[in-house]
Amino acid sequence: MQPISEIAHSLGLTDDEFEPYGRQIAKLPLSVLEKRKGGPQGKLVLVTAITPTPAGEGKTTTTIGLTMGLNKLGVKAVAALREPSLGPVFGVKGGATGGGKARIEPSDQINLHFTGDLHAITAANNLLAAMIDNYLLAGNPKRLDPRSVSFQRCLDMNDRALRKLITGLGGKSEGVPRETGVEITAASEVMATLCLAEGYADLKKRLARIVVGTDETNEPVTAADIQAEGGMAVLLKDALKPNLVQTIEGNPVIVHGGPFANIAHGCNSVIATRLALALGEVCVTEAGFGADLGAEKFLDIKMRQAGLAPDMVVLVATLRALKMHGGVPLDSLKAENLVALEAGFSNLARHAENLKKFGLPVVIAINRFPTDTPGEEEALEKLCKAHGLKVALSDVFGAGGAGGEVLARLVTETLATETASFAPLYPDSLPLRKKIETVAKEIYRADGVEFLPAAKNRLAYLTKRGYGNLPVCIAKTQYSFSDDPTKLAAPVGHTLTIRDAKLSAGAGFVVAYAGTLLTMPGLPKRPAALDMHLSDDGEISGVM
Amino acid sequence: MQPISEIAHSLGLTDDEFEPYGRQIAKLPLSVLEKRKGGPQGKLVLVTAITPTPAGEGKTTTTIGLTMGLNKLGVKAVAALREPSLGPVFGVKGGATGGGKARIEPSDQINLHFTGDLHAITAANNLLAAMIDNYLLAGNPKRLDPRSVSFQRCLDMNDRALRKLITGLGGKSEGVPRETGVEITAASEVMATLCLAEGYADLKKRLARIVVGTDETNEPVTAADIQAEGGMAVLLKDALKPNLVQTIEGNPVIVHGGPFANIAHGCNSVIATRLALALGEVCVTEAGFGADLGAEKFLDIKMRQAGLAPDMVVLVATLRALKMHGGVPLDSLKAENLVALEAGFSNLARHAENLKKFGLPVVIAINRFPTDTPGEEEALEKLCKAHGLKVALSDVFGAGGAGGEVLARLVTETLATETASFAPLYPDSLPLRKKIETVAKEIYRADGVEFLPAAKNRLAYLTKRGYGNLPVCIAKTQYSFSDDPTKLAAPVGHTLTIRDAKLSAGAGFVVAYAGTLLTMPGLPKRPAALDMHLSDDGEISGVM
Repeated sequence: MQPISEIAHSLGLTDDEFEPYGRQIAKLPLSVLEKRKGGPQGKLVLVTAITPTPAGEGKTTTTIGLTMGLNKLGVKAVAALREPSLGPVFGVKGGATGGGKARIEPSDQINLHFTGDLHAITAANNLLAAMIDNYLLAGNPKRLDPRSVSFQRCLDMNDRALRKLITGLGGKSEGVPRETGVEITAASEVMATLCLAEGYADLKKRLARIVVGTDETNEPVTAADIQAEGGMAVLLKDALKPNLVQTIEGNPVIVHGGPFANIAHGCNSVIATRLALALGEVCVTEAGFGADLGAEKFLDIKMRQAGLAPDMVVLVATLRALKMHGGVPLDSLKAENLVALEAGFSNLARHAENLKKFGLPVVIAINRFPTDTPGEEEALEKLCKAHGLKVALSDVFGAGGAGGEVLARLVTETLATETASFAPLYPDSLPLRKKIETVAKEIYRADGVEFLPAAKNRLAYLTKRGYGNLPVCIAKTQYSFSDDPTKLAAPVGHTLTIRDAKLSAGAGFVVAYAGTLLTMPGLPKRPAALDMHLSDDGEISGVM
Repeated sequence: MQPISEIAHSLGLTDDEFEPYGRQIAKLPLSVLEKRKGGPQGKLVLVTAITPTPAGEGKTTTTIGLTMGLNKLGVKAVAALREPSLGPVFGVKGGATGGGKARIEPSDQINLHFTGDLHAITAANNLLAAMIDNYLLAGNPKRLDPRSVSFQRCLDMNDRALRKLITGLGGKSEGVPRETGVEITAASEVMATLCLAEGYADLKKRLARIVVGTDETNEPVTAADIQAEGGMAVLLKDALKPNLVQTIEGNPVIVHGGPFANIAHGCNSVIATRLALALGEVCVTEAGFGADLGAEKFLDIKMRQAGLAPDMVVLVATLRALKMHGGVPLDSLKAENLVALEAGFSNLARHAENLKKFGLPVVIAINRFPTDTPGEEEALEKLCKAHGLKVALSDVFGAGGAGGEVLARLVTETLATETASFAPLYPDSLPLRKKIETVAKEIYRADGVEFLPAAKNRLAYLTKRGYGNLPVCIAKTQYSFSDDPTKLAAPVGHTLTIRDAKLSAGAGFVVAYAGTLLTMPGLPKRPAALDMHLSDDGEISGVM
């Protein structure tokens, strides 16, 4: 690893433009961005994926590897990634620092506390929560209805016993008993809010407008009514500064913000993306889960709010996942199966078609696995070409930046020869239900949307209260285009059911729930924590 | 402020012996201590106080000012302080970075997230908690009784609504419903455990022995049974490294660990104290609340476990507090009152007498307030001298290191001329109840101890299970020698009532509860958070 000061210098940062956190991590103050306003801007490349297997298809690994590959070609590329959450690290999924020879470092630190951003978000969230209960007890001048309080506490931990709880027990002096819950920090409104904020002034405005519940006449009560936004902003001061690290080949990576991609919008922070664009020739970034969830939200929420536009999209596919979509069970994905591959290709084709609806050039990256056969790779390349899709084989897990050069070359060619004409899928002015219907039909390819009564009422209420102009964030399973995780490939004839909706006023979107989605994961029977050790000399092992 | 690298160099640390966190804070890896084992050791000076007013008597300010004063005299003194907790910062009491011209910097950062130690402790604590509930759900091979689980979650926040709650609601798949609570992080067993650990190996051993509940036959079930100690240790890796900052006069200060002084032992970490002794000629450190609580625990718990011995004690007194002990109400403490001063002096005299029972030289520091009158100061000096007590006026709040030179000179003289012969108050072998009785009689000056049935049973149980050799940590009000906060000065004829007891196996002590003590504070009607702001440029105001 190079000293982080060298990485910072390679980006043209002066010594007072980065704050070291140890020798391998730095925070970049917001003044860095301020100073470069109006200056040259890099190209923006979004990495997304087909509908994934439970193991994921290697979006982060491809993002890192593509960045390494571009740098090998002499292009000053900067990756912009999300921060890991401790919940999955100690639970089952693992960290978020890539894999094989396409990794970022120092991975243990990044996967654990990193620079404390998630802890700061947890603290800011829980300050508001404590102030709400204190407000109820100390006079409650706005007549906040305790039963209406929708703002929950959060913890950066997988802890299913906290999904539903009753707090404020123990008698009159201990508070107002009420049913509530605890979310994982990555699913919290404060996380989404921070990731979409443009700076301190905007952050404060967003925090102030968070709706915590309603009064007796059903009018929203906000964090501003509780006077919590000042204390929350103070706690988030350093968390709003992006973090600089490096790939194992010494290329710059900005890792900042980590909202979930179902309940929230699933992208790293707007500030981090802007910073990567200001400091590099190309910013390679990613969005969570498959393109129906992550890319749609990246484009319709993050790009819309920030007024940014991507220049192209890399759609990551694996032969394993395509075979799964072609009907092969998870435990048989290693065997060659050209028939299943062709059947499952419909998933890839639909995602690519969807992305083009946003006016974006698309290339396919085949993320190589050791079990892939030459016959399958050839077949997939042919299928792509038959569908008019540019494709590159990417072996960044196995070969690092060298394995990403073919993809990097395809990306630079595409950037040089194709012009994006990005537009979000729907205008702000479209009513909330129409927005949901648009995403359902255009992206999920549903025949229509069924709104259950709770959803109808909530969407009508939010429209009446002036939130109808916000974009929608549909919380749906990542395992299917539809809301049924068993419907693989490119399902047709399905209806999207919207069960309920929730305002995320700080983030600036309305969450629509298709099915039941957990905002607090549980630990598996055998948590990853069981395999973690710290040696007597302080060496960490078992953190993935 | 000087760059932290200069402070580190002034202590003889090389560039690879400190890890910068920004430009003004560094973490010191444990190898620094390891390398200096067997080398020269500084003198250890404990700063404690008389029974305080609710505002506190300025122990931290005196510790900082004395360190500055010693450095002014050419003595290489290093202060070792506790870390602030976010709960009091956002609640009512404020931070822990001193006051006036005796402060440490960067105070906003220290009072907010600092280097994330408290967040790491919160995470490690809550990982164990989540793993306990997961263990109950996932087979429970040790037959842990859900109703017996005594280990609680924690948060670094004042949040009274979390004192008592019911978790695991929502049906069979969500866990086992049970009544539990949330403590503030400073009151958690993990905090006390970290502060008493000697290194990574010892930390792991201590974490493993934390008792989380009992099985069907009433046998303890530990964190080791849940296999949580590895993951917890991984989360605590960086938190075990002491933090280096500076006084506003550029003297080195180590700030590390912050357990409460009633429910826990109230001192900074053993590792930080050892480090200050290895790096400086004098280590000035403090213990929470009055000497009956903080100093007794510092001596009987921290010094006993670490095998360290202090060289002398500075007992901080204020004229205000002495007048309060002499019967003056809190709102009239500004007026001169020599009669009350003399009456209240009994509190000071008793604390000094107590400290001498440990074989320690004692000097009195009068911490000057602007409302003090020359007549009062003179009267107090006379009273001290009449009782054979060395005394110095300290004006570090008003005049910084220059205002601490008189005290610093008295301290260096005392270190040069008097020899401590430290011994803890009781031997390990004394039974738990006898230990409590010893502290009650020798320190609190109670006629005796009444053990309520729950306490009797618990102490007998702990003795039977092999924990009888541990020291006791008595959780008592800080406002009186007795367990009744209204009994000021030097009460006699009182009985100490022990209501219950609790094992803190990781920390290595048994907590005995004298009265009801909150392990989760609440926010006041008007929390300090209401006055905090972040400017559009990221400047913090209102954090004290």
